[in-house]
Amino acid sequence: MSKVEFSRGLEGVIVAETGICSIDGAKGKLYYRGYHIEDLLQERDFEDVSFLLYFGELPTTVQRNMFCEFLCKTRVIPQTLIDAVQRMPRSLHPMEVMQSLVPMLTNVPVDMSSVQKLFSDFGLDGDSCGRDLALISQIGCLTSMVYRSYHGKSIILPHDSLGHAANMLYMMSGKTPTQNETKAFDQCLSLHAEHGFNASTFTARVVASTLAPTVSAVSAGYGALFGPLHGGANEKVMQMVAAIASPEHTETWIKQRLKNKEKVMGLGHRVYKTRDPRANAIETLLEVVSEEHNNTTNITILRIIEKVVRENLGDKPIHVNVDFFSGSVYEQLGIPPTFYTPMFGAARVSGWIAHVREQRSDNRIYRPGALYIGPTPRNVTL
Amino acid sequence: MSKVEFSRGLEGVIVAETGICSIDGAKGKLYYRGYHIEDLLQERDFEDVSFLLYFGELPTTVQRNMFCEFLCKTRVIPQTLIDAVQRMPRSLHPMEVMQSLVPMLTNVPVDMSSVQKLFSDFGLDGDSCGRDLALISQIGCLTSMVYRSYHGKSIILPHDSLGHAANMLYMMSGKTPTQNETKAFDQCLSLHAEHGFNASTFTARVVASTLAPTVSAVSAGYGALFGPLHGGANEKVMQMVAAIASPEHTETWIKQRLKNKEKVMGLGHRVYKTRDPRANAIETLLEVVSEEHNNTTNITILRIIEKVVRENLGDKPIHVNVDFFSGSVYEQLGIPPTFYTPMFGAARVSGWIAHVREQRSDNRIYRPGALYIGPTPRNVTL
Repeated sequence: MSKVEFSRGLEGVIVAETGICSIDGAKGKLYYRGYHIEDLLQERDFEDVSFLLYFGELPTTVQRNMFCEFLCKTRVIPQTLIDAVQRMPRSLHPMEVMQSLVPMLTNVPVDMSSVQKLFSDFGLDGDSCGRDLALISQIGCLTSMVYRSYHGKSIILPHDSLGHAANMLYMMSGKTPTQNETKAFDQCLSLHAEHGFNASTFTARVVASTLAPTVSAVSAGYGALFGPLHGGANEKVMQMVAAIASPEHTETWIKQRLKNKEKVMGLGHRVYKTRDPRANAIETLLEVVSEEHNNTTNITILRIIEKVVRENLGDKPIHVNVDFFSGSVYEQLGIPPTFYTPMFGAARVSGWIAHVREQRSDNRIYRPGALYIGPTPRNVTL
Repeated sequence: MSKVEFSRGLEGVIVAETGICSIDGAKGKLYYRGYHIEDLLQERDFEDVSFLLYFGELPTTVQRNMFCEFLCKTRVIPQTLIDAVQRMPRSLHPMEVMQSLVPMLTNVPVDMSSVQKLFSDFGLDGDSCGRDLALISQIGCLTSMVYRSYHGKSIILPHDSLGHAANMLYMMSGKTPTQNETKAFDQCLSLHAEHGFNASTFTARVVASTLAPTVSAVSAGYGALFGPLHGGANEKVMQMVAAIASPEHTETWIKQRLKNKEKVMGLGHRVYKTRDPRANAIETLLEVVSEEHNNTTNITILRIIEKVVRENLGDKPIHVNVDFFSGSVYEQLGIPPTFYTPMFGAARVSGWIAHVREQRSDNRIYRPGALYIGPTPRNVTL
């Protein structure tokens, strides 16, 4: 048999046209619909980013007001779902809980009075788009409710006027967050909202290609994001930081690790051959909240790790990625490692629904080929 | 910009090597690990087929006994999950219910005493394989429980000695099925157990490629299978049969439909260019149960439809597929259209877990490329 070439993991194989996200891996640039992520973070919040990803353009002031009102109004979780959150077996990881809860959102009533005009401006079917976009709010609320329930605390109902990020923090802690905390979390959400055809987004698109409902696609996205090769890397960075424990031990610890050819977590990325642009942004956030909370141990350790690793790797294109600093930001916000990936999911839902919409706009069901290497035809015997 | 070619829906693009399933679309042949499906149906049952798909070989008698004992023992659904079944909002489709329930199986205790030797014979990690294989039983039970709950009936606990197919029917109807009913359902399960890299199996593999747990992958598979382009076609055939209502109207009805260039359901397949081999098998099953139940209206209508369509299509490679007869078999077994796709899922779980295992054995996370056609870099303004 002649050798058939194929690309494992579909690396470099084009599967679709997209207008949502572009990544310049060589230069370390990440664009959402043509806007560089660092510019978006400076001038806009997660609501605007979500709007941009879904509709293709940043909102005007009028559109933004309509959209924010809609997101506030759709912070409604029916009592049956709150009960389901509270009854989830404790043996489930919060990501499994989220994968399980999302299909239950399928027919939850959505108040679309504030956005009908918005959808007609964009020539969209209001009902289906409204349900898609409501998932941003619903999943934000569910994530915070799962956080409370997982820690044995009573559920906090959504705030009716805080922004999306502040509301999520409020529903987790019960306290109105500071401006810096809100900004840090909001920017984490914006940074994690979209990243092209990663495994969870691709999963959501494959499911959407069967014309299954958006909740089916988003739930499936959670399944993929739960995988330790995908969503879980920032947790491993934090384990490393905890093992190092103090800045003065860092250099020796990392040098020993490199000498033993052991992996250092939070470094390298299949796409970026330079420093991940999201790492730049998150490092800045971490600096601000660390100083506000007067707790700079982690950021000091992380900066030493990066310095030592870069000195030892020379020209190798292995740099810190988004996961390197993000766990430490979450820690400053009081969010424990088990909930890092659920926060990722609450952000990525904005990307998933944009991709589901794009997939449906020019759909063909995914059914790839495979190279059969198994037994040739044989007879069944009893 | 020069035109970049890519294959929409990944048609014809090889994504992996596989030893599980091969399809000869031109000849209309379907092989599970080298065995033709029609031979397997004649000599073996769903338990043997599931064993074959997972382990790669048909079981010896000793292995079969161990495996069947294991499947009986793993028919255990914890009370918390039974409660979850009964509390599912009625607004959910049973497929959404299944997608939601499967992640909850993640840490359910599995009795592996009867299969430890089996796994060590195959050099496998007993714990992970045992959990994978237990999903066959657990999902069979959950499907029947969802059926009962959906119809407002009390849950029936699993039988401890019936075979897999008979137990599922028993847990739905409360009655021990006849031999012919059992055989028909068993063969439907075997026929639907595996079919290569279709959208739901590919979804399960993409999720597994992140190293997420098997339940995450299988739940995601349910999301894809729910899509009307994937799992729901047999329901549409039954709507057509119901609209035709009687054999004497069939020819006129279909001719009018063809004249209007409207679609006739249950015909054509992306892979098969001849009669789907699964259609051959299911037609035989339908004949047997229809005669036993003294209700041959559907099979008569279906045979007239096929005859008229074939006479009118001439040489076009459009033939009846697996969905053409399967709905009518389910109807004879008392299973309503809403549950056709859940039955498909209860069968396909055997294929999904085999693919998850194969994916993990030579893993690389899926991250395809995409052709960016969106806006070029632009500036954010306030």
